[in-house]
Amino acid sequence: MAKALYVLNGPNLNLLGTREPEVYGTETLDDLKKRCIKKAKDFGLTVEFRQSNAEGELVDWIQEARTSSSGLIVNAGAYTHTSIAMLDALQACDVPIVEVHLSNIFTRESFRHRSYVSKTAKGVICGFGGLGYELAIEALASAISHAKAG
Amino acid sequence: MAKALYVLNGPNLNLLGTREPEVYGTETLDDLKKRCIKKAKDFGLTVEFRQSNAEGELVDWIQEARTSSSGLIVNAGAYTHTSIAMLDALQACDVPIVEVHLSNIFTRESFRHRSYVSKTAKGVICGFGGLGYELAIEALASAISHAKAG
Amino acid sequence: MAKALYVLNGPNLNLLGTREPEVYGTETLDDLKKRCIKKAKDFGLTVEFRQSNAEGELVDWIQEARTSSSGLIVNAGAYTHTSIAMLDALQACDVPIVEVHLSNIFTRESFRHRSYVSKTAKGVICGFGGLGYELAIEALASAISHAKAG
Amino acid sequence: MAKALYVLNGPNLNLLGTREPEVYGTETLDDLKKRCIKKAKDFGLTVEFRQSNAEGELVDWIQEARTSSSGLIVNAGAYTHTSIAMLDALQACDVPIVEVHLSNIFTRESFRHRSYVSKTAKGVICGFGGLGYELAIEALASAISHAKAG
Amino acid sequence: MAKALYVLNGPNLNLLGTREPEVYGTETLDDLKKRCIKKAKDFGLTVEFRQSNAEGELVDWIQEARTSSSGLIVNAGAYTHTSIAMLDALQACDVPIVEVHLSNIFTRESFRHRSYVSKTAKGVICGFGGLGYELAIEALASAISHAKAG
Amino acid sequence: MAKALYVLNGPNLNLLGTREPEVYGTETLDDLKKRCIKKAKDFGLTVEFRQSNAEGELVDWIQEARTSSSGLIVNAGAYTHTSIAMLDALQACDVPIVEVHLSNIFTRESFRHRSYVSKTAKGVICGFGGLGYELAIEALASAISHAKAG
Amino acid sequence: MAKALYVLNGPNLNLLGTREPEVYGTETLDDLKKRCIKKAKDFGLTVEFRQSNAEGELVDWIQEARTSSSGLIVNAGAYTHTSIAMLDALQACDVPIVEVHLSNIFTRESFRHRSYVSKTAKGVICGFGGLGYELAIEALASAISHAKAG
Amino acid sequence: MAKALYVLNGPNLNLLGTREPEVYGTETLDDLKKRCIKKAKDFGLTVEFRQSNAEGELVDWIQEARTSSSGLIVNAGAYTHTSIAMLDALQACDVPIVEVHLSNIFTRESFRHRSYVSKTAKGVICGFGGLGYELAIEALASAISHAKAG
Amino acid sequence: MAKALYVLNGPNLNLLGTREPEVYGTETLDDLKKRCIKKAKDFGLTVEFRQSNAEGELVDWIQEARTSSSGLIVNAGAYTHTSIAMLDALQACDVPIVEVHLSNIFTRESFRHRSYVSKTAKGVICGFGGLGYELAIEALASAISHAKAG
Amino acid sequence: MAKALYVLNGPNLNLLGTREPEVYGTETLDDLKKRCIKKAKDFGLTVEFRQSNAEGELVDWIQEARTSSSGLIVNAGAYTHTSIAMLDALQACDVPIVEVHLSNIFTRESFRHRSYVSKTAKGVICGFGGLGYELAIEALASAISHAKAG
Amino acid sequence: MAKALYVLNGPNLNLLGTREPEVYGTETLDDLKKRCIKKAKDFGLTVEFRQSNAEGELVDWIQEARTSSSGLIVNAGAYTHTSIAMLDALQACDVPIVEVHLSNIFTRESFRHRSYVSKTAKGVICGFGGLGYELAIEALASAISHAKAG
Amino acid sequence: MAKALYVLNGPNLNLLGTREPEVYGTETLDDLKKRCIKKAKDFGLTVEFRQSNAEGELVDWIQEARTSSSGLIVNAGAYTHTSIAMLDALQACDVPIVEVHLSNIFTRESFRHRSYVSKTAKGVICGFGGLGYELAIEALASAISHAKAG
Repeated sequence: MAKALYVLNGPNLNLLGTREPEVYGTETLDDLKKRCIKKAKDFGLTVEFRQSNAEGELVDWIQEARTSSSGLIVNAGAYTHTSIAMLDALQACDVPIVEVHLSNIFTRESFRHRSYVSKTAKGVICGFGGLGYELAIEALASAISHAKAG
Repeated sequence: MAKALYVLNGPNLNLLGTREPEVYGTETLDDLKKRCIKKAKDFGLTVEFRQSNAEGELVDWIQEARTSSSGLIVNAGAYTHTSIAMLDALQACDVPIVEVHLSNIFTRESFRHRSYVSKTAKGVICGFGGLGYELAIEALASAISHAKAG
Repeated sequence: MAKALYVLNGPNLNLLGTREPEVYGTETLDDLKKRCIKKAKDFGLTVEFRQSNAEGELVDWIQEARTSSSGLIVNAGAYTHTSIAMLDALQACDVPIVEVHLSNIFTRESFRHRSYVSKTAKGVICGFGGLGYELAIEALASAISHAKAG
Repeated sequence: MAKALYVLNGPNLNLLGTREPEVYGTETLDDLKKRCIKKAKDFGLTVEFRQSNAEGELVDWIQEARTSSSGLIVNAGAYTHTSIAMLDALQACDVPIVEVHLSNIFTRESFRHRSYVSKTAKGVICGFGGLGYELAIEALASAISHAKAG
Repeated sequence: MAKALYVLNGPNLNLLGTREPEVYGTETLDDLKKRCIKKAKDFGLTVEFRQSNAEGELVDWIQEARTSSSGLIVNAGAYTHTSIAMLDALQACDVPIVEVHLSNIFTRESFRHRSYVSKTAKGVICGFGGLGYELAIEALASAISHAKAG
Repeated sequence: MAKALYVLNGPNLNLLGTREPEVYGTETLDDLKKRCIKKAKDFGLTVEFRQSNAEGELVDWIQEARTSSSGLIVNAGAYTHTSIAMLDALQACDVPIVEVHLSNIFTRESFRHRSYVSKTAKGVICGFGGLGYELAIEALASAISHAKAG
Repeated sequence: MAKALYVLNGPNLNLLGTREPEVYGTETLDDLKKRCIKKAKDFGLTVEFRQSNAEGELVDWIQEARTSSSGLIVNAGAYTHTSIAMLDALQACDVPIVEVHLSNIFTRESFRHRSYVSKTAKGVICGFGGLGYELAIEALASAISHAKAG
Repeated sequence: MAKALYVLNGPNLNLLGTREPEVYGTETLDDLKKRCIKKAKDFGLTVEFRQSNAEGELVDWIQEARTSSSGLIVNAGAYTHTSIAMLDALQACDVPIVEVHLSNIFTRESFRHRSYVSKTAKGVICGFGGLGYELAIEALASAISHAKAG
Repeated sequence: MAKALYVLNGPNLNLLGTREPEVYGTETLDDLKKRCIKKAKDFGLTVEFRQSNAEGELVDWIQEARTSSSGLIVNAGAYTHTSIAMLDALQACDVPIVEVHLSNIFTRESFRHRSYVSKTAKGVICGFGGLGYELAIEALASAISHAKAG
Repeated sequence: MAKALYVLNGPNLNLLGTREPEVYGTETLDDLKKRCIKKAKDFGLTVEFRQSNAEGELVDWIQEARTSSSGLIVNAGAYTHTSIAMLDALQACDVPIVEVHLSNIFTRESFRHRSYVSKTAKGVICGFGGLGYELAIEALASAISHAKAG
Repeated sequence: MAKALYVLNGPNLNLLGTREPEVYGTETLDDLKKRCIKKAKDFGLTVEFRQSNAEGELVDWIQEARTSSSGLIVNAGAYTHTSIAMLDALQACDVPIVEVHLSNIFTRESFRHRSYVSKTAKGVICGFGGLGYELAIEALASAISHAKAG
Repeated sequence: MAKALYVLNGPNLNLLGTREPEVYGTETLDDLKKRCIKKAKDFGLTVEFRQSNAEGELVDWIQEARTSSSGLIVNAGAYTHTSIAMLDALQACDVPIVEVHLSNIFTRESFRHRSYVSKTAKGVICGFGGLGYELAIEALASAISHAKAG
């Protein structure tokens, strides 16, 4: 059976749904997890869904995903803009990587415009809230099936 | 009946499929158009699909889309990085806007990292080739149905 | 009889009055044209009033104004900040040039603070809405009569 | 009766007419004062016209204008580019403010391109010599009458 | 028979000979065209010589040159410094490209020192007036004959 | 009873008193804790005092403070200058935040002049050693009592 | 008897309480003065409290404070960001200096983030309104008593 | 007996030998450890060899090394370029510090050219793969014996 | 009889001799004045020697020097680096100007490396303490005698 | 008889033909010299062809060329980007100067994009290998004959 | 027999031991030479050790080393930061290159942080005084023996 | 007897008097030498006066001056702005150094505003032509006699 898709979430994403619901909606990280599992199932795929506030733990998980996953969805939160360590770990992964952000980071403060994750991702999806995770799974599933067929 | 989705393509995208097929694939702009129409149909939507090399013509079409479309997908090509005129036209649109790029522009030259379109888009999708247009339609359809329901 | 004043308007100014009336007022570009004609008449002058979204067409008109006008009022819209081509065309004009903007561009985004038009204009008027065009005609009429007298 | 318009002039403007007459003309600051009084009279307005080389005194006068004037014309001379103190004082004024410069500052040295006054002015007029003051009074009179009518 | 050399001229070059003859000489664009045709003939080549003020039209012509020309000479005028769209079109061309400028752009304003065309050109010739076009044809003819021989 | 004040200390602050006592004094972090508890008692408040070298743990604690504290004092040490993750967590807190530094960071290396914490703090106190913590508690107590009264 | 603490206030602080009370509160500069006198009394100290809009006068007072004060509190207002002259005067003072700002200057425009005063101050307190002056007196009193004891 | 040399390795160095062996060689981190122990033995020294992906843990270990080691070799990996926290911890160490990198970081991306570790290191060795660790031990042993002799 | 040389001294120079004598020496501003008078006498010239902490007063004096002096020596102190107002006043002077600094400003903080005075001075002398004033008088005397002879 | 054309070659150009022949071709500097002599002969001109690795020697030769040559071709190699000394020497030459580079320097590292030579050259030719020297001679011959005729 | 290692020393290194012995030690360049010869002997290698203050001579020697050496150690002194000419010469060398500096250049002035030599070196060793040369020989010997074995 | 003053002149100064006499005057470098010798004689000093176009030779002479001169006057010409090698040599000199320039370098191109020589000079004199050398000798003589007296 195919390896799981890893969906890794960075700092503060555990607050989802409880923080500024009028901005971020009432959907919690757990809701998001369910949504990912369901969407992946449509493509015959499973999901390993995690969140951490610690950069080192996220690096550990990316290293784990090198051999245990068939693809990686990364919403690195604030570490997107500062973590060269995560970039290095991602560059060591041969599986396809998709970068996701809930909000459109390009309409926010300028220090959020630079992404280290982008340098190693196949593509980027941002601004669509929870739907963005579903689109990322769709894109990842397509990349995986092409790789198999290729 | 609902207004069409406008899918506007900027300079050089008419060369798709004939230029560096090993990089951009053999899919032509016409193939892309068909793919968009089919995907939109799944959501009960129609598509107005256009391409131009002229910045002024693209501004004209965005202005037209203000009143004639229910949503806008923009792949502004090279004008993404230089056209404040397109930004101004987009800012006058009340319909939802999605920015698309075939390639991951953040892994290319640094002068391609700045996007004027992003400042006015709901979200950005880049790096997934033709599939990105389908994901954009999916995201736009979702935005439109939420707006109706809201 | 004296040659006409050319009043050239750049991209998106055709939307005037229909876009964000609470900000830009309900005055349309056509109202502005009438206002200019009336004001010019006070000085015994006529007006050639045009608008285009296309940079190339604006360059054409500036070249035409070199020999056909007695003075030039330019509201280049977004091209103010990006068009070296318009700067070159304006530098080839011997008639006096006045730059106008409806809003105070210096209180807007920083990429709107640079103006290529300013490098070749006699003076700049910005922030006074439609009245700015009348002030520009007054300034241009003064420059023309001084030149004749000089 | 309506409060006076304050016309405040910054450092070195007292030299007008005696310095480089071939560039700045032979018009003195006193001539300029008379011209302003006459123009204001056309709109039923009076003028309080002052000049100082001292930043602190200009700040004092702007504070005075907060309660004693119906509008403010500021030619801050060299302090335009350096005085955050004047900016703060101007931001405390609720009356409309118009920025004037005799020359087109955007064709001069780059350290003259930044204006702190612009951040708080309704509009800017530069490059038209003494006529610019008349245009500024016209613009200010229009703003005042609109405010009354509004 | 060999395909023509395309010689594409950007904005304001149609003014050649009528604008500042003491600087640019009295040679018109039409004189330049004749000079190119004659020089090309020496190498058994023909010339397709065009000028446009519109960025989009220049992009169209570069695309046309991809299949219809054996080599490209580009004097992009002001678009040299701003047009990523022309860069993209040029990058899609497999034929050799030579960049020409009448004046030495490196002794002019700093915003004229950056060239997007250079990134894709085989070589650059600037500062030699109309003679530069002849040198460019010589260089292009050499490149073409080497390619054939290679 | 009122919720505790959280006093969170970042990396290397555990070395206090043992490192360069001639610079930082002989006061240890534990002394500082006692000082805070005593000062808070004057205002009828309690203190939760913690230190960590790990960015992720500090983010965890800030999230905890969202619901468990009535106010937050943050000396983020070196993370002050680099941690967008802590900024995001702090922005999710509705309780008042005071930033403290033992030394005057503006007289140190330039990479210590930027603070992400400042963007979300009510105020900043730096340069007063351990006394700064007491002043911060005083300021926080004032803010809390005003909020209650408001 | 001990020399007075000098509390020096820069441009526009005389407007306190009359300008935007909803932002800055209704406390006037005179209220602030009383508050400082009272707080200083707690430490057996007296206060010399002054305000000026003129940079030169503030330099004079700082020079006076060199020999006549036992410590200096400086809220330089807008001159904080531009006055090297005040920095030079402060550097000639051997008494301890505390920098105060009513608002958190680091959450305001970027040109307010640089402080020349900070380079010579023992510490900085900002963002706590009038309370900040009291905290500054407390910090200054502590510094003075330590110096005596030291 | 002499205290051990601490050899601290940052994020992703645990992947050594398994990632891109054609670039980094087949030597694993464990091989590197053995090599260090053997080399240190030549100088009568022992080695404490560790790796972590977590910035906080590396700070902890540097603090531990302050009192437990006679010298420090640091290959901070990606944290080299971002961790002011590690810099602060290193600055609190009185033992000699040597910075090592497997690759020549100055031939890589520009964001890898800045090193916070360098600011506190006695010297830097980069580009020599595993041999660099041996050279570092040699340099450290020399520094320690000089310090003893000195 | 020849007009006097004006020697104008900016902010904080009145502290000379009393501030950091081990750095700046024990020579007071009054000593410097006597030295200038004596040196000028050697060339048959008189000296008008002044100091002010106020930028506006220095501008007044420069304007006075336009007609009352035969040459100008300016040590603008901190205003050297910030005062465009003094630059404007100096540019209106036709008499020769020499810039003096007691210390070598190029070995001090980088914000002291820019001089607005230099843009209008015939020459600059810095780093020689009080002797620099004498050298400046010598240079000015030479310039004046050449001008007479020329 | 006419003075010779000086063709001056900078550092490392003596390696031509022996270094990376697959990139730079097998043509040696001596071949290049012969090619120049032959081409110059077509225009009735002679050539003085030299190479040096020393900046000072190149300055000497440029000074010699001031009086001994009728024109100058300069390929300054790496000194193109760093030598203000050569710029000064070239600026002292009244004969026409042409800058040549074998490769297109604008497609290489960014530190090769700045040329001090360009500031003083009539024109620039780069990217055409050895042919560029022939084109330069052609351009120089044309400039010389125009100067004679002019 | 194997070719010698070239050890090339740049400007001012001839002063070693006579200049600031308390900083640089009493070891002279000649001592350093002996040390290198002895160390090289351990690996069966010989050393060609030279010093020059002239950039051109250093370029000559690097070119000589292309064919006459089996490896290169370069301490370019001040030319490290400015000489593109030496970079070009080094890039033409196929033998391994090691960059050495006596001091840790990264703790010195910022204009010493950029190294052109690094761009072409296998590795860098800095901060270890004369020992650094020995380490460099060790690293070079290792590189040479691997190359032979490879 | 006292050691000589070394007066070292950089590239292109040998052209003095023959190049642009209307700008630089007709005084040659030899005239300048005589002037220096005569002036030094007034102070009982002798002069060693040299010029070179080669950076390395200037470094040699500065090293020589370390032991053979009692003071150094340096007009480094274009190397002022680029030579860190000369800076290093000058920093090794314990004798006083005065920097001289014939023209006011601060009114020339911006790349001439940076001086490496200034970082090590006691003072700077620029803009006074040949007279500047005399003033420098006067300043140097003063420094030497103070040093003797001190």
